Amino acid sequence: MRVEGARKKAARTAGLEQLLNPHTVAVIGASPKEDRIGGIILKELTRSHCLLYPVNPKYKALRGLRCYPSVLDIPERLDLAVITIPAAGVPAVLEECGRKRIPYAIVVAGGFGETGEEGKRLQDQLVEIRHRYGIRILGPNTLGVFFPEQSFDTIFVEHGDKSLAGGGGTAVISQSGSVGIEALGLASNIGFGLRTFVGLGNKCDLDELDFLRYFSEEPGTRLIAFYLENINEGRQFLEACRIISQNKPIVGLKAGRTASGASAVSSHTGRLAGMDLVVEGAFRQYGILRVQDDEELTDACRALEKCPLPKGNRVAVLSPAGGYGVICADYIETPHPFTPLEMARLLPETEQRICSVTLPFASCHNPVDITASASGEMYGQAMEAILSDPGVDILICLVFWSPPGIEDNLLDIIAQRVQQTEKPVLIFTTYGPFTDRYLLEFWKRGVVGYSSIERTVRAARFLVERRMQQKGRESNQSEVSLKKEMSLGVFVERSKRSVRRVVERWIVNLREAGQPDEYEAKELLKRLGIPVPKGIRIPSDLSEDDDSGFAVKTDVVNSGVQAGMKSLLPKRFPFPVVVKVCGATFLHKTELGGVQVGITKAELETVLADFKNRFPTASFLVEEQVKFLSPELLLGGIEDPQFGMALVLGAGGVLTEVYKDVTSRLCPITHQEAKRMLTELRIRPIFEGFRGLPFDREGLVRLITRFSELLAASEGLISQVDLNPLVCARERGWVVLDAKVVLTEKARRNS
Amino acid sequence: MRVEGARKKAARTAGLEQLLNPHTVAVIGASPKEDRIGGIILKELTRSHCLLYPVNPKYKALRGLRCYPSVLDIPERLDLAVITIPAAGVPAVLEECGRKRIPYAIVVAGGFGETGEEGKRLQDQLVEIRHRYGIRILGPNTLGVFFPEQSFDTIFVEHGDKSLAGGGGTAVISQSGSVGIEALGLASNIGFGLRTFVGLGNKCDLDELDFLRYFSEEPGTRLIAFYLENINEGRQFLEACRIISQNKPIVGLKAGRTASGASAVSSHTGRLAGMDLVVEGAFRQYGILRVQDDEELTDACRALEKCPLPKGNRVAVLSPAGGYGVICADYIETPHPFTPLEMARLLPETEQRICSVTLPFASCHNPVDITASASGEMYGQAMEAILSDPGVDILICLVFWSPPGIEDNLLDIIAQRVQQTEKPVLIFTTYGPFTDRYLLEFWKRGVVGYSSIERTVRAARFLVERRMQQKGRESNQSEVSLKKEMSLGVFVERSKRSVRRVVERWIVNLREAGQPDEYEAKELLKRLGIPVPKGIRIPSDLSEDDDSGFAVKTDVVNSGVQAGMKSLLPKRFPFPVVVKVCGATFLHKTELGGVQVGITKAELETVLADFKNRFPTASFLVEEQVKFLSPELLLGGIEDPQFGMALVLGAGGVLTEVYKDVTSRLCPITHQEAKRMLTELRIRPIFEGFRGLPFDREGLVRLITRFSELLAASEGLISQVDLNPLVCARERGWVVLDAKVVLTEKARRNS
Repeated sequence: MRVEGARKKAARTAGLEQLLNPHTVAVIGASPKEDRIGGIILKELTRSHCLLYPVNPKYKALRGLRCYPSVLDIPERLDLAVITIPAAGVPAVLEECGRKRIPYAIVVAGGFGETGEEGKRLQDQLVEIRHRYGIRILGPNTLGVFFPEQSFDTIFVEHGDKSLAGGGGTAVISQSGSVGIEALGLASNIGFGLRTFVGLGNKCDLDELDFLRYFSEEPGTRLIAFYLENINEGRQFLEACRIISQNKPIVGLKAGRTASGASAVSSHTGRLAGMDLVVEGAFRQYGILRVQDDEELTDACRALEKCPLPKGNRVAVLSPAGGYGVICADYIETPHPFTPLEMARLLPETEQRICSVTLPFASCHNPVDITASASGEMYGQAMEAILSDPGVDILICLVFWSPPGIEDNLLDIIAQRVQQTEKPVLIFTTYGPFTDRYLLEFWKRGVVGYSSIERTVRAARFLVERRMQQKGRESNQSEVSLKKEMSLGVFVERSKRSVRRVVERWIVNLREAGQPDEYEAKELLKRLGIPVPKGIRIPSDLSEDDDSGFAVKTDVVNSGVQAGMKSLLPKRFPFPVVVKVCGATFLHKTELGGVQVGITKAELETVLADFKNRFPTASFLVEEQVKFLSPELLLGGIEDPQFGMALVLGAGGVLTEVYKDVTSRLCPITHQEAKRMLTELRIRPIFEGFRGLPFDREGLVRLITRFSELLAASEGLISQVDLNPLVCARERGWVVLDAKVVLTEKARRNS
Repeated sequence: MRVEGARKKAARTAGLEQLLNPHTVAVIGASPKEDRIGGIILKELTRSHCLLYPVNPKYKALRGLRCYPSVLDIPERLDLAVITIPAAGVPAVLEECGRKRIPYAIVVAGGFGETGEEGKRLQDQLVEIRHRYGIRILGPNTLGVFFPEQSFDTIFVEHGDKSLAGGGGTAVISQSGSVGIEALGLASNIGFGLRTFVGLGNKCDLDELDFLRYFSEEPGTRLIAFYLENINEGRQFLEACRIISQNKPIVGLKAGRTASGASAVSSHTGRLAGMDLVVEGAFRQYGILRVQDDEELTDACRALEKCPLPKGNRVAVLSPAGGYGVICADYIETPHPFTPLEMARLLPETEQRICSVTLPFASCHNPVDITASASGEMYGQAMEAILSDPGVDILICLVFWSPPGIEDNLLDIIAQRVQQTEKPVLIFTTYGPFTDRYLLEFWKRGVVGYSSIERTVRAARFLVERRMQQKGRESNQSEVSLKKEMSLGVFVERSKRSVRRVVERWIVNLREAGQPDEYEAKELLKRLGIPVPKGIRIPSDLSEDDDSGFAVKTDVVNSGVQAGMKSLLPKRFPFPVVVKVCGATFLHKTELGGVQVGITKAELETVLADFKNRFPTASFLVEEQVKFLSPELLLGGIEDPQFGMALVLGAGGVLTEVYKDVTSRLCPITHQEAKRMLTELRIRPIFEGFRGLPFDREGLVRLITRFSELLAASEGLISQVDLNPLVCARERGWVVLDAKVVLTEKARRNS
């Protein structure tokens, strides 16, 4: 395995130029028939700058090119084989490609791993050949590659006006050919700057990580977009994104947002994570700009490729129609969890300047309405005034072509202003059947436009998000120097091992094999420095010897049943107390009447007797009652099958699943990242002097990073954790009032 | 005023046929020049079926028609004058139209009320002429009217391919010409069924209500859509919508969603209402399907006009591309407060049927993936199988044109299945530059499609919402019989007057003129049967004579300061108690340390002394401490300037403004409507056996309707009310723990 990994890594560094921009290409299964895939691809490739070698034993010549019975008969060295024949025949010809030492092959046919057992066996044969000969495979079941600069195109379905797609800097990696290609086709109507398109197909060999790394170094690529349904090596992929996104924006579409499969999970955190929370958080953490569908993907790429980034989030709107200006302002001011936008406040000078160049009944504050009497001249002058206002970070310009004073030269007037400014300008325009034509004219002049106000505002959010990423990176760098003093952030291997040893020892000492109860869960937290209330566990059978081996046991003055249960408590235990039924099997303690609060010293004995009566086989937890004013939070952990341990932070208490006000990151997380998490909650005003009550933000950040270290060190041992509620108590800071830990199958067996 | 109102009403019933479908039309300001408005409109109208009478003293003939110096020179009776001259000259020619007894005039020019004082004076002259002669005016500052059936079109700007727009049943009323026309232009690319377009402009006379009523009776109109920036007679307009929407769907766009002006409001409710909450709730209450922009407006109209309504909300997806199917499922399952959709579960028979007609590697459960090897035949058969499944209410069909097995006859295959079913089918399709062309071909065959998955799913939500409206109406009708017994719902004038008298008397007896404190607010609630905790007010100066005149005062055993404050309480007051500082000026009692809970009999005297010390001039409220398990709710009232008194219901407590989990209705509201409000809150699971705790839903519904009667009766007296928190106490149901009432300026002066 290790040898294989090293080989793969070495192969990766070799680059993929021969695949994406080859000089010599064999087309296996080439055909004269234009309705056959082998015919379409051959015809398409004759437009490229490659030397072509059709392969088909049935023909001597095709399109004027010599046709060979097998790649083995071709005298030249080949960069690439495009295999267009049906699945069953592929292994045999791929074997020949291997023998010919062709470095790359694209396998177009479907009918492999995606179709069931038989196809999977066929695909395994390809993988075996790939390893035997070192030939790298793209596919099977893929549309292949489109590299407009060299007119190199193996895609055999319609994908928009090819001439438009060239000259750009956006690389698109798509697992599904159709999603990628339909999106590009639609985007090409209004302009899209494609550098390279790659369809991954079944990913039997080359995958997203290979192409991501290639495009990160390919000088013509300024921006990388991907559509993926699954991610092969989740954590490695994300780590690569983190590094690459420092230089090139990465836009990601991951299907399966709401698909849950949440039936098997038994914690709050687990149910919340079913909503795709982990992917959402991980993408943000690793610098990926997430989009929800193909339209948003192309919209984001168009803006990110052409526009400078804004300094802030203050947007001005320029419109010749008041109604549209108001609708646009509505979209701008709609609350957004991560990229809130604001309507810019124009300086009085700016407003005066606008008024001086427009007609008397124009409205010169933002949204600026220059009315249907607008001329191109007015547009230009108003744009200049707005763009020179230091309170404006982004300008959205609404353009209509029906007002009598508007001519087609408005395209140039606007383009000129866009070229002169360092601020991003986005256009919304519609003109009935001519809408796309005008959008394309804008694009050709370097101006980005959309035909929907909603999409225009959304594009502005992507620019702001990208800017925030860069800002976050800057402040991360200044954080590095702080790290040593604060013993936070980077989670070094040594401390990871020591935390893991604590967890392992804790598991061995559990009372019931593999099922920690609340008391035991809190013991683990306590050992790792996460505060919990003072408390003791009263075993179900008081005469039973408690062999939990926890230090707290020595506190207990156990004089047996005769002396009354109260005497079990340490002498100076703080009253009032909370009594809870305790055991991994009690899921909804409150609903069962298994929690009672505010118990005084005098009442305790009666309450415990009542509990004993109602839950004869259970243990009980007697805890100090913590006073707090803060809202309740939830801190959780969940093992994601693709990305590993994720931490979840959110509003807690009884309404956790009602509001789903949660955010997530993969573990371990830095101090800085923990702070960003706080800003992403709707409940964030509580950290901003909410109702005059100051809650200890720094303490919470410390607690989060510490908890993330526990999770990171417990990978493979712990599958889910719920700390809920977590509250801020007067004078002692954040305390975990209830805790639940679920072990992995493996840890349960070993405990 | 009353006479004027009656005259207006009479005129309204006369109908607007002569305006929207005239036989004889004068074009005042007609011109031979095609770049002049008077030239464009004349040319446009020569295509109509009207008799035309150009009016312009400069010409004898235009386009072969006799041209008249003035309308007074035209021998025939005229239905309509279209006035195309600039603003300054309009009053003089309108006066002539009046003298000629022309019933309708369209005034195209801007430069009236929208431009400031001078323009407003000019507009007032039009209104004066309108009243003198009875001539009805559309505009000024309007694009006028477009009635494709008769090719009658006064719109002088580009608005898409006119031939497409005809033959439909959708009437569009738009205050802003540009919003309406640009939307139609864009929609005409892909098909839109326009019946009539009306631009309202400045609404100096004819307004939305006139056209709404006309279209409700016009037999060719099946659907009404409006775009409005303000609504003239808010409540009347809504009442009309309620009745009309029983027969014809109404789609509404109201700009200004987030615009707040909330700085002046001082209550939770007020701040929440700033988010356009009232319009949102009122539209839902009165049967208007609300949209957020022009694209959504046309999208909704296209689906509502052509599709049958679904029986439920279960959606099946049919796709030849797995990735797109998953993206579509994600949009379907995205939580939605009012129109949640579900992915349908197909019957095993259905899945088998699909498998039997597709290739082996198709995926036959929802979302169904018939793969890129799909043929038209497979599409048709899979559609039949899915549409015959009783568990499917809506089918979304994703169509791509690139798979080799797909031909253009797929248009007809799908159209045939759509015609044969009573379930709605929506199409998503893209095909690069040809996308709109295919959407239009579908539309011509009676099939509704969109080029974005998000928009397709949104269209499905509109169908579900319309269906829910109809269901709600059915259950409303069965409710009528219940109303008398339950004394709920219809708020009869008599009880309204008696409630108002209670409020008026209460205002007169307030201690401080116009500033009710918490104790007084609760007194009002108590008198109207809304439960509050038992409590007394201890005046700031104990020797002062409490002249509040409230009945509770007689409960107070006031033996003066000497006997200790505790003795102020009635003998059998329930302990522990809550002590609060009480007065209209204390806004954030908790933050000020002005609330203390859990005070025992022994502690009370000390606590009161401490309060007295810290708030020397304040009164105090001593209340029983209510135990509750329910989450906290908020019930509020706010006077909306356009629509009157609105009731707000939502999640309450400290996080009210964090989650803004609120919904609203205009007052008074029916039992049924109050129930619907509960279903619109995200917190709704608490009424559905949340965590095993049953909260009294019926009691809450009664409380809401009673509170809405109080609000309705207090119009003009009370401007804002906050009942927060409202909680469900053990054994006694819903209780208001804190209450705040703000009087109107007028009521304050009079108190």
